[in-house]
Amino acid sequence: MTARSSSESSRDIPEATVARLPVYLRALNTLADDGIRTCSSEELALAAGVNSAKLRKDLSYLGSYGTRGVGYDVDYLRYQIAREIGVTQDWPVVIVGIGNLGHALANYSGFRSRGFRVVALLDADESRHGEVVAGVDVRPFGDLEEIVETHGVAIGVIAAPAGAAQDVADRMVSCGITSILNFAPAVIVVPDGVDVRKVDLSIELQILAYHEQRKANSA
Amino acid sequence: MTARSSSESSRDIPEATVARLPVYLRALNTLADDGIRTCSSEELALAAGVNSAKLRKDLSYLGSYGTRGVGYDVDYLRYQIAREIGVTQDWPVVIVGIGNLGHALANYSGFRSRGFRVVALLDADESRHGEVVAGVDVRPFGDLEEIVETHGVAIGVIAAPAGAAQDVADRMVSCGITSILNFAPAVIVVPDGVDVRKVDLSIELQILAYHEQRKANSA
Repeated sequence: MTARSSSESSRDIPEATVARLPVYLRALNTLADDGIRTCSSEELALAAGVNSAKLRKDLSYLGSYGTRGVGYDVDYLRYQIAREIGVTQDWPVVIVGIGNLGHALANYSGFRSRGFRVVALLDADESRHGEVVAGVDVRPFGDLEEIVETHGVAIGVIAAPAGAAQDVADRMVSCGITSILNFAPAVIVVPDGVDVRKVDLSIELQILAYHEQRKANSA
Repeated sequence: MTARSSSESSRDIPEATVARLPVYLRALNTLADDGIRTCSSEELALAAGVNSAKLRKDLSYLGSYGTRGVGYDVDYLRYQIAREIGVTQDWPVVIVGIGNLGHALANYSGFRSRGFRVVALLDADESRHGEVVAGVDVRPFGDLEEIVETHGVAIGVIAAPAGAAQDVADRMVSCGITSILNFAPAVIVVPDGVDVRKVDLSIELQILAYHEQRKANSA
């Protein structure tokens, strides 16, 4: 865990800025992959798809202002953002529901490279138990409590069918999980103090549709 | 297709606003599901996770200002946003790569409900041909051109392995596809005029990690 003073950890970063930090991190990773060592706020803003004034404002919450005439050091800024998000530490994660989506998530390389380690795959379906996906055994859903305790799991991923999502969430919460990523197409209700985020795989497709429509109208 | 004047279609909406429109649409759908007919900008902003000044500014690009003392009509605003994005029309989509992720995407109910219709599933692996996923036949990748022409497909989804992603993209572009949603963990290069968006399934997980870290620090 990164050492930080209590004054640092109590700063409030606006939620919209928090949501953009992973996008900046992704853009910086792409720049780094291309061998780029420093970038201007304009270049980074373009790569991240935001305007540069907003980018500079967002990064100012991290105390990161770049160097006049040079811009931002790509590696250092990656480190600053990763530390702020918390992905410089190791996050054990459980995935519940090992259908197609659960399989795809278990195999998804982008989790591991961002500090997320899938420690267990759970499914209610007995016929799946003992199957090994991406090097991890599929275990009974009933093992959730033991696994959460053993590995100190704070984050659970729901890839179960919509009808099971609330039950899975309730059980996660009762085991002490305090953050839930919900891929099931269902609204789940959790107590205060538990964060839920819902993934909508159609959002990016909608952004493409917007541009397609404009291309069609201008053609 | 929605009728619109050329002056309307030539307005420039900032990219960041475009990216938030599907988020507002999702929030409005949730409000509508809860039986809510009108909402204030503050309520909608909260549901969408943005600040209300930004929400009002974003919606002003659509000519949507709500009614003083009443707020926004949920159904009408849904329609306005859906029309602006272009999801009031039907978008035929092909998915290439029918591994676990391709299966999950083909079965994903959120595409159909947003105007995206999966017209074909393609895979290079012969052993998959003839398989039916979510009511759609898996066909040889070589059929791409014929399918794109027959259905007027403008949007392609890449769910192939990273190593195949660029080849798939090249082939899509040569067939006339002008928007690509790339789920493969690989950077793909396309000519000007083709839009590519990359889905990073770890972004929401990173936002959760940020809040978990803060909970841990304040405990």
